[in-house]
Amino acid sequence: MTQRGFEKAFGYTFRDRELLQTALTHRSYSSPHNERFEFIGDAVLNAVIARRLFEQFPTLPEGDLSRLRANLVRQDSLHQRALALSLGDYLLLGEGEQKSGGHRRPSILADALEALFGAVWLDAGFDAASEVVLRLYQGVLVQLAPGQEIKDAKTRLQEYLQGRRLALPLYALINTAGEAHEQHFTVSCSIDALRIRSEGSGSTRRAAEQVAAEHALEEVANS
Amino acid sequence: MTQRGFEKAFGYTFRDRELLQTALTHRSYSSPHNERFEFIGDAVLNAVIARRLFEQFPTLPEGDLSRLRANLVRQDSLHQRALALSLGDYLLLGEGEQKSGGHRRPSILADALEALFGAVWLDAGFDAASEVVLRLYQGVLVQLAPGQEIKDAKTRLQEYLQGRRLALPLYALINTAGEAHEQHFTVSCSIDALRIRSEGSGSTRRAAEQVAAEHALEEVANS
Repeated sequence: MTQRGFEKAFGYTFRDRELLQTALTHRSYSSPHNERFEFIGDAVLNAVIARRLFEQFPTLPEGDLSRLRANLVRQDSLHQRALALSLGDYLLLGEGEQKSGGHRRPSILADALEALFGAVWLDAGFDAASEVVLRLYQGVLVQLAPGQEIKDAKTRLQEYLQGRRLALPLYALINTAGEAHEQHFTVSCSIDALRIRSEGSGSTRRAAEQVAAEHALEEVANS
Repeated sequence: MTQRGFEKAFGYTFRDRELLQTALTHRSYSSPHNERFEFIGDAVLNAVIARRLFEQFPTLPEGDLSRLRANLVRQDSLHQRALALSLGDYLLLGEGEQKSGGHRRPSILADALEALFGAVWLDAGFDAASEVVLRLYQGVLVQLAPGQEIKDAKTRLQEYLQGRRLALPLYALINTAGEAHEQHFTVSCSIDALRIRSEGSGSTRRAAEQVAAEHALEEVANS
């Protein structure tokens, strides 16, 4: 859980380590915190995704481009990407936030990921931030088909397996932690035919299954 | 009213003249028109202004930065800049739009200006687009400077005490934790005359002092 470990997953090594530190600092912990970075990170994310969609879909009208982008940059989507990076493990939170499960709160994770994009922009310029964003979004970007909603990971995994006439994955709850209104679920995803077993966790069982399916898709892609 | 004349006012000469042509073409005239360019132009404008405000106001909270930006990028503001460039004279509009005064319609002018920012981004990259945007916004940006910056907490606390002819606060380091490049400082702020003693922490001593000062100001306000 060192910051170096995070940088490896994130795919970027900061020259100025204070920028990384600030991006990971929630306002409940200390100042400077990541809210100002989030402001520019949101802007660079929107610009990078806009340009990428513009190029990927050369004839798609502006309204459709806007809708596609809105899907990609909304909290839910950022949250998925933050979970895949285990970003929660590296966040600096005040005591109260820590105790109430702030490490797993979707808004805190999504905001911190935006702050990280902003920090890369400050550290090494627009093109560096663009590379980081596009790498993290590569998986969803290649799946995009204009005019249709972005398919979630479970759907994509299911379609992949059906296309190969393989049995559907089995999802099983393996752990539940936390109190009633702040529960945290860990789920496994098993694909016997491919000898793949992945795990995922999240604040709902459904969210945990999506993360597990995302990890299974990564294993499929790497196998 | 040649396009070369417009480029002179706009401060940018296009390498690919088709990009300029498309940016000036309203959807009522022909296809390709400027709506898709407007999509990426809006994104690059938002990013450039976000970054500029972030740097111009180093201590302004995220909410204030957002409000400042919203003022600068709204249709009204873009319309003003389009008028200064006589952009309406260069627009390609369908006959109906021409007759109904489309050359003067704020939304058409604002959208075309955004499309032009997008076209520069496509033509020569983000930094080129950034230069064009900042040159056109220079006049409003410098006017923002003086009154709008919020003073940092230490300065506000000092001014409060000086206004009451009280001794300045004493800041003292009370704890340092963590390894060399990941240190965490806790600092106290004592104002003997008011029997106030607050604490703050942060990743630098200076940041910790700001937080302690902020807490002292809260106590002052509540006493």
